[in-house]
Amino acid sequence: MTRWEPGARGRLERAAMELYGEQGFEQTTVAEIAKRAGLTERTFFRHFADKREVLFDGAGALQELLVDAVANAPASVAPIDAVAAALEAAGVVFQRREDSRYRQSIIASTPDLQERELIKLAALGSAIADALRLRGVSNIAAGLAAEAGIAVFKTAFERWIGEDTQADFAQLVRESLAELKAVTSGG
Amino acid sequence: MTRWEPGARGRLERAAMELYGEQGFEQTTVAEIAKRAGLTERTFFRHFADKREVLFDGAGALQELLVDAVANAPASVAPIDAVAAALEAAGVVFQRREDSRYRQSIIASTPDLQERELIKLAALGSAIADALRLRGVSNIAAGLAAEAGIAVFKTAFERWIGEDTQADFAQLVRESLAELKAVTSGG
Repeated sequence: MTRWEPGARGRLERAAMELYGEQGFEQTTVAEIAKRAGLTERTFFRHFADKREVLFDGAGALQELLVDAVANAPASVAPIDAVAAALEAAGVVFQRREDSRYRQSIIASTPDLQERELIKLAALGSAIADALRLRGVSNIAAGLAAEAGIAVFKTAFERWIGEDTQADFAQLVRESLAELKAVTSGG
Repeated sequence: MTRWEPGARGRLERAAMELYGEQGFEQTTVAEIAKRAGLTERTFFRHFADKREVLFDGAGALQELLVDAVANAPASVAPIDAVAAALEAAGVVFQRREDSRYRQSIIASTPDLQERELIKLAALGSAIADALRLRGVSNIAAGLAAEAGIAVFKTAFERWIGEDTQADFAQLVRESLAELKAVTSGG
């Protein structure tokens, strides 16, 4: 019988983030994370495949949110604008700037985590491209609009966690899209 | 004293590609590659950091070529057009379609290699963005133009190794850029 563990996932996440910050990601073991959370390693592995995945816990929900928003955009909306509207809607996920900044500093400190982030972003781009194809967008245009969307997302996110803006995530998506449109018009 | 080995690098590359195709990338060892090439493991490691790097041998030269072309574009050229001109110039690298197709089929069969390719592409994007910044392009515009360029590059490359075109790489870069411009204009 599995013991009921209130908030085990959240406790593991918090413990992992604390330890990654205190002693570094690579130096931290799953055993230490579980101990700090007052749980067992076995419980850790019920929630996360490995210690990297703790940092990418929101990726699945983000992808689902973006794909749904692209799928549900009105038929008249151009592909790039459907993607941009989806990214703006993702602003609900990006609210706690300090948490995101902290998480990103851990990723930036470890090549292994930067690789994992590239993989997650590539998967996100593929999922968005597939959602566009389901709307009848041509194969090539869907790929390019999705890649352009990922570029806008990365730019908006970097600016959002930067020190020099108070703008919210959706606003930074709009600004980054406008900048991309200016850049690709060759102006 | 190091024995002179005529064409050791090329022989190792050919042996590796043959073995990856015959028995799979993951099943192939460096010892087997060296043996097939008639060389020692020690010689292999003088030329390549690991068996993955054999597949990405051209990445450094490609990056240098692109960065130089961006740096040397006339000052009046818009960032995205400087990047596109650089990608067109890279057509000299992409001549042997069958070799590229074969190499890409090996990469596509192994998640580990797909990851390595994502990392190489991200590094290429960063290098192009830096080259644009040195031209005085703003930080954000440089990042977006470089990411857009990578999207164009990926699209052109996928079409080039596809079965349904005889167009050369430079032509596919021009077409993909035109498509990107149409997509991002929201039309």
